[in-house]
Amino acid sequence: MCIRCVSKSTAVRLLSSWGAGSAPCALARAIGGAEAQAPRAAGVRLYSSMPQPAEQHGANVNEREGKVAHPTLLNADLLKAQYAVRGELYNKALELQKQGRELIFTNVGNPQQLGQQPIHFNRQVLSLMAAPFLLDNPAVASLFPKDAIERARKLHKTFGSVGAYTDSRGNPGVRQEVADFIQQRDGYPANPEHIFLTDGASVAVRLLLNALIRDSNDHILVPIPQYPLYSASIQLYGGTLLPYNLKEQTGWSMDFNEITRTVHEARNRGACVRGLVFINPGNPTGQCLTEDNLRDLVKFAHNEKVVLMADEVYQPNVYQDEKPFVSAKKVLGDLGAPYSDSVELASFHTVSKGVLGECGLRGGYVELTNFHPGTIDELYKAVSINLSPNTMGQAVSINLSPNTMGQVAMSLMVNPPQPGSESYQQWKKEHDEGLASLRRRAHAMTDGFNALDGVTCTFTEGAMYSFPRLHLPPKAIAAAKAAGKTPDTFYCLQLLEATGIVTVPGSGFGQEEGTFHLRTTILPPEEKIGEFVKLFQDFHKGFMAKYA
Amino acid sequence: MCIRCVSKSTAVRLLSSWGAGSAPCALARAIGGAEAQAPRAAGVRLYSSMPQPAEQHGANVNEREGKVAHPTLLNADLLKAQYAVRGELYNKALELQKQGRELIFTNVGNPQQLGQQPIHFNRQVLSLMAAPFLLDNPAVASLFPKDAIERARKLHKTFGSVGAYTDSRGNPGVRQEVADFIQQRDGYPANPEHIFLTDGASVAVRLLLNALIRDSNDHILVPIPQYPLYSASIQLYGGTLLPYNLKEQTGWSMDFNEITRTVHEARNRGACVRGLVFINPGNPTGQCLTEDNLRDLVKFAHNEKVVLMADEVYQPNVYQDEKPFVSAKKVLGDLGAPYSDSVELASFHTVSKGVLGECGLRGGYVELTNFHPGTIDELYKAVSINLSPNTMGQAVSINLSPNTMGQVAMSLMVNPPQPGSESYQQWKKEHDEGLASLRRRAHAMTDGFNALDGVTCTFTEGAMYSFPRLHLPPKAIAAAKAAGKTPDTFYCLQLLEATGIVTVPGSGFGQEEGTFHLRTTILPPEEKIGEFVKLFQDFHKGFMAKYA
Repeated sequence: MCIRCVSKSTAVRLLSSWGAGSAPCALARAIGGAEAQAPRAAGVRLYSSMPQPAEQHGANVNEREGKVAHPTLLNADLLKAQYAVRGELYNKALELQKQGRELIFTNVGNPQQLGQQPIHFNRQVLSLMAAPFLLDNPAVASLFPKDAIERARKLHKTFGSVGAYTDSRGNPGVRQEVADFIQQRDGYPANPEHIFLTDGASVAVRLLLNALIRDSNDHILVPIPQYPLYSASIQLYGGTLLPYNLKEQTGWSMDFNEITRTVHEARNRGACVRGLVFINPGNPTGQCLTEDNLRDLVKFAHNEKVVLMADEVYQPNVYQDEKPFVSAKKVLGDLGAPYSDSVELASFHTVSKGVLGECGLRGGYVELTNFHPGTIDELYKAVSINLSPNTMGQAVSINLSPNTMGQVAMSLMVNPPQPGSESYQQWKKEHDEGLASLRRRAHAMTDGFNALDGVTCTFTEGAMYSFPRLHLPPKAIAAAKAAGKTPDTFYCLQLLEATGIVTVPGSGFGQEEGTFHLRTTILPPEEKIGEFVKLFQDFHKGFMAKYA
Repeated sequence: MCIRCVSKSTAVRLLSSWGAGSAPCALARAIGGAEAQAPRAAGVRLYSSMPQPAEQHGANVNEREGKVAHPTLLNADLLKAQYAVRGELYNKALELQKQGRELIFTNVGNPQQLGQQPIHFNRQVLSLMAAPFLLDNPAVASLFPKDAIERARKLHKTFGSVGAYTDSRGNPGVRQEVADFIQQRDGYPANPEHIFLTDGASVAVRLLLNALIRDSNDHILVPIPQYPLYSASIQLYGGTLLPYNLKEQTGWSMDFNEITRTVHEARNRGACVRGLVFINPGNPTGQCLTEDNLRDLVKFAHNEKVVLMADEVYQPNVYQDEKPFVSAKKVLGDLGAPYSDSVELASFHTVSKGVLGECGLRGGYVELTNFHPGTIDELYKAVSINLSPNTMGQAVSINLSPNTMGQVAMSLMVNPPQPGSESYQQWKKEHDEGLASLRRRAHAMTDGFNALDGVTCTFTEGAMYSFPRLHLPPKAIAAAKAAGKTPDTFYCLQLLEATGIVTVPGSGFGQEEGTFHLRTTILPPEEKIGEFVKLFQDFHKGFMAKYA
């Protein structure tokens, strides 16, 4: 929640329920003075000399308790999160794990950790890129198919060695492949010079946010519920998050009248609203946006003059046919003038999701559409730190480049085996079966939740998560309060203790006041989903009976 | 150079020689008002509406020329470098390349780009980690040695799949291997919980600087000449660089009296001096520090209460026997109390250098010694962004983890084949020959430079660079000024035009006023070094004759 956007009474209420010791400074300032009496909330880490807020950032104090790098003497933007409660769910899980409990980690979208198999062809090529001397060995054909060998030869020409730095924006050949992929997907040209490869989409997101945010008056619109990379990054770069609420009752839809009012009200009080983030398919909410919705987003960005940030990392993960994925770029092109050549659009994609699930390799990209060429230059500078301002204005390349294996994975994602090639059949089988399995699990999860009294759950139309709503009885809510926890955390902790299932409470993503959710992934293997659903259902019935 | 540390007259002189349009804002402010008359220096990119300094950061202006993300409306810390001259050398090189000229890139420490071969064993294991299904294929033994297969099996158990995210600090098994390596190297224990794996050492350096720097009054001591990652990062994070000069005449030594005076003077005017960076072996200067020098550094850090940042990424690259590499950690341990348990030391290492040269894989680490546990927590938080302050104080893991292949490469670097194992002989051969070749090239380069009139060059005792000093005749300096360039840039551009050799002018690293250097790597293949030296010598003689 953007602190400056809540009413004072709401802020007071939030503060008292969180515990002021855990509240960000801005909240305390917003309620004018409550800061001075900072009670210690449960779970807040206390240092032996916890400074009072007035000297909170310790500016100009060089050491404390004999330490220069004392935790209270660090960068304020990092510290702002210092007093919040840390990872109760995650810490509890680690505790239980140490005790030998077997856990089911559905808290993180990390497919291969839960047994999803990588795409064979991709790994064959990566393997040959790691050890290109194998290509000279006649025995290589006994272990690798011809087309994998050929692709590796080709990529090896493009990269030279994967041990060498590439251009800071990524290998030009791979960027061309990404551009070709985009053009094929959308029907509109893509310029490889406007594409940056990064160590995962998150790096690209932070690059954009860091560039866009100048000071705390710069606001970025973020959907609530959201993937907290956005809130955390906006915080880190000193900006302000301006929330817009997705409407659960209508499939997590956007209300553009409400969003427009939010922007105008913010601007009326002097805020500078610079960007709007949307996640399609959604995380944690799992909705796929209609083309109408996307058109509304583009028009909104044009009319209200904000940069559109399209987080499309889950674009391959679509589990229904009514709303296939359509990129913001395509919608922008289809709308034509004046939108198509004016709306500044940053589109993000990754190798971490889809059926690849290669989170560990760290491969992502951002495509910049309608950005000022000078800004693209500035971003290039930012990824390469080409200039050292302390020198005589000379440019010195500092060697920062996205990792090469992630770039290779990206090449393989956007340029997969084609019909007719040796590996195509297996590739297609793995790809199609992977998606079909995810679709089945999306249904199994949703149905499992909806079968319960006191739980409603929108269908996971896309992405990798289920975000059921928990309609908790008043007794449960009271018990949670008594325990000093938010009701959804209270529920999730008990779920964890009882079943070993590790989830993330909805408050981690933001949710409408008075509603409670949790996020789980749909990633447990199919043979385990039934067990998962049963464990959950048994727990839930017991919980509801206990607090009836 | 730290702008605030130069005298006003020096600042005025610097400003007029750079061109005010290229000077960072702080410099202009330091000379009080010259900012308003900002002449356009050659090469400064001009936007059609270049704002006057007063509105320079465009705070609260949301769009310009129809663009929200207009280059003049971006994050001020990014923009501070905006008006400096961009990469003349690099741009000229790209231009010549487009014209079909063949170039010799000795501007970047990118060994495998110039033909250095990776260590076979490492790539065999990386290959098997990319495609672990090969381990089940009986034919695998025809392509891979037994110990590589075994190591891959072991690592595969540790990692699961390289496609999965790891802990944000890196895989615990690899961190234990790093700890074992450190303990073996130094004789003192290392704690894997105090070791963070990162996508290259640069990421770790920036993590530390970002945490340490709170505002522009926080100063970090940086050696001049330096690797400009430091100046650029300090700038980016809003801090101030406090230079300390290395003395070329005495092998780039440190003068601790002078450094102490620098610190006291800074503190007397209210500066907060928080850290000291040193690079051993040095970049660009190539000196290896004596144990005495290291002891002085540790004592200095203790007495003056600064965090010691030891950039030791070139520790395997040592080309003489008088001053072998000794780690700051070992010296700290040897000194005993009160130093060994009080000095806050951050030590950095990488897979990019040494004989591995795996820059593209992005693998590095930082070891934190004597850091407050709360600070280590904060750094853990920073690498995982565990907290979203906009939520109800819940911790939500955002998935940021260093790339897995880089972590595998790190494991292989710190835990190489041992005597007795199948690959040991070849590993040792590649390792020893790699180092011997670099040693020969270090000599060839140094001798080549010293053979010339008007060039003196300290021996490359370590790292990967040669940093010859150019004793330019007055006519050359005047010609440079007339051309609007610094003398070393002027020289390097002509060198490039005449020979295709791409170097970096010394001003890119900082150098004592009135001295001129250039940095080249020692990385051209041995069979080409003779040609390189000859080309350079012929050019230099011609240049000196021209401007006699």
